[in-house]
Amino acid sequence: MAFAPSKLYVAVVGVGLVGSEFINQLLSIPPQGSPFHLISLTSTTRTIFNHTNPITSASSWKSVLAGSPDRPDLAKLTQQLSALVSPTQKVALIDNTSSEDVAAMYPAWLNAGISVVTPNKKAFSGDIALYEQIIAASSCPTGARFLNEATVGAGLPIISTLKDLVITGDKIVKIEGVFSGTMSYIFNEFSTGKPGGPEFSSVVKVAREKGYTEPHPADDLNGFDVARKLTIISRTVSSHSHTPVSLPKLQSFADVQTTSLIPPELEGIPTGDAFLDRLPAFDARFAQMRADASAANQVLRFVGVVDAVSGQVRAGLERYPTTHPFATALGGSDNIIMFHTERYGARPLIVQGAGAGAAVTAMGVLGDLLKLV
Amino acid sequence: MAFAPSKLYVAVVGVGLVGSEFINQLLSIPPQGSPFHLISLTSTTRTIFNHTNPITSASSWKSVLAGSPDRPDLAKLTQQLSALVSPTQKVALIDNTSSEDVAAMYPAWLNAGISVVTPNKKAFSGDIALYEQIIAASSCPTGARFLNEATVGAGLPIISTLKDLVITGDKIVKIEGVFSGTMSYIFNEFSTGKPGGPEFSSVVKVAREKGYTEPHPADDLNGFDVARKLTIISRTVSSHSHTPVSLPKLQSFADVQTTSLIPPELEGIPTGDAFLDRLPAFDARFAQMRADASAANQVLRFVGVVDAVSGQVRAGLERYPTTHPFATALGGSDNIIMFHTERYGARPLIVQGAGAGAAVTAMGVLGDLLKLV
Repeated sequence: MAFAPSKLYVAVVGVGLVGSEFINQLLSIPPQGSPFHLISLTSTTRTIFNHTNPITSASSWKSVLAGSPDRPDLAKLTQQLSALVSPTQKVALIDNTSSEDVAAMYPAWLNAGISVVTPNKKAFSGDIALYEQIIAASSCPTGARFLNEATVGAGLPIISTLKDLVITGDKIVKIEGVFSGTMSYIFNEFSTGKPGGPEFSSVVKVAREKGYTEPHPADDLNGFDVARKLTIISRTVSSHSHTPVSLPKLQSFADVQTTSLIPPELEGIPTGDAFLDRLPAFDARFAQMRADASAANQVLRFVGVVDAVSGQVRAGLERYPTTHPFATALGGSDNIIMFHTERYGARPLIVQGAGAGAAVTAMGVLGDLLKLV
Repeated sequence: MAFAPSKLYVAVVGVGLVGSEFINQLLSIPPQGSPFHLISLTSTTRTIFNHTNPITSASSWKSVLAGSPDRPDLAKLTQQLSALVSPTQKVALIDNTSSEDVAAMYPAWLNAGISVVTPNKKAFSGDIALYEQIIAASSCPTGARFLNEATVGAGLPIISTLKDLVITGDKIVKIEGVFSGTMSYIFNEFSTGKPGGPEFSSVVKVAREKGYTEPHPADDLNGFDVARKLTIISRTVSSHSHTPVSLPKLQSFADVQTTSLIPPELEGIPTGDAFLDRLPAFDARFAQMRADASAANQVLRFVGVVDAVSGQVRAGLERYPTTHPFATALGGSDNIIMFHTERYGARPLIVQGAGAGAAVTAMGVLGDLLKLV
């Protein structure tokens, strides 16, 4: 009774930090045991496609790609991959970019029977039309699937845990967490529950020097990254529940009630350097919030909350007792996510750990890909 | 390009607390969207099998099973299920028992192409011969898979996270955790880091009254439950790693270095009541250990450790600083598991939450079953 499936064909778009790490992890699986054939790579300037002679060398793929005469062409790639899909041949495309343009291709790929795996938050946190097209296309009889574990918490099991809870009939009460590694680091340093501490601007400056923030720190302090992750979580709950859920139908991540940390006076400052030069003028404001919190034995944390009781999805600075896991258990740039559900009752299910970085993000992507085989 | 797979046929053996909850969760998936057909149930006294008219009613399956004239017959069930397996028809057997006899059937089922999903620890933590037969049979070209997420931490994502880490090439440094809900409750109550506290025997007595221990508390205090879970973890790491791992080849869970909490004088006491009557005579011993720990700002926790550096797999009472997550983050009867790996560096990946109970155990089983479709 031998019906061994063919190896899954894998095409990778995006070979930056995460993409390179992903390819290296994929190729670290010994070939004889690997369920994958890596048949295509696409960077911003080059592409290769060869399904009869898959890529197997972690040491040479970069030079092979660099030496290719072919320019990236997603329409052509779609045709090439579509032609390979059959009842006995699965094909997956890995989007390791953060591109809106690539995300816009997902429905076409899924409809062609090509599974899509990605750490790119754009599609599932963006316009609802694209999101709904993806949902529709991934429930088609082609069997193609859309998997995005690494969009929230990188390699941490967040999306898969959420799906398991909801699909098996648990009721989500509230999901709350520190979803941004940058925000985690900043407030773990800034607000410890003890009186005093470093100035807010100096913590942000050090975070930027350590590479924890974007080049322009406002791109973290605006809270949009957290709002995008909450949108993905909220939509995942709604789309997998068997019964109606009291969560808003978010038109995009802009619908999340997000309280930016950017002082209104500093909105629109064009460069990160200029922004940091002016941030100290607002240190007293942040110090006052910290003092108010510590006087009440509390810490400040920038959290995201998906509340399925009140129907609220919000991102912003909140206060937690110094005995709360967000105060006691966090450190470094860890993410921590609490799942409050009917089954887990008074004590939530908690997942914690590094929620960013190429190695753990690539692992989240490869973990998803392994679910397809 | 329509090639929708047939619905997965599911047979359930064991309809006790976990089994009943599992069946109810499975049947809570709306029929039109369910990827499953529940075709067989087997209790200790009855069995039903009907693949042309699957079970769909959560309210009537118990009476239908109770009214069946057919006695359990695993050999016959094996034949019936084997006959249904085909390249287009997957079949899964769910073992919701804790039976060694049922566990002994896994290789035969897997070799027949029947996937096996179970919260039963016996097979993977028992004799190495059975374990190796399961590994061999689940890598056969039949495509049948063996999944056992719920054997460790019930519904918590422990085994799946471990597999993802190892298969994607991360290096396990150490896995340590509080793996027993019973032990968690006992030591969260007994040892808080502050001087004094309740007597050990009184904590065990209350734990038993609350249903947290087995009827005979020695069945928890011997540490075997933790040793079994460590065996499953250690074997899972070894069998999924691409490179050699410094972990011992455990012949069975008896090879785990387990330090029992049963005072030697109380070994072999036949009943739980008699055991509890005599336990207070040893309270001073436990109080002394607690006093030594709290004098050093430490707490006592019964932990399991799989150390891939020293090659040690051990279960026993250890001391942790009062600032450690095992002291600060734990409460109730929570499990907590820390994955120290190369990628997660200085700060481990942590999963925490209820690690026992019918609802969350059944969820772990159903989550595995969903991976098959």
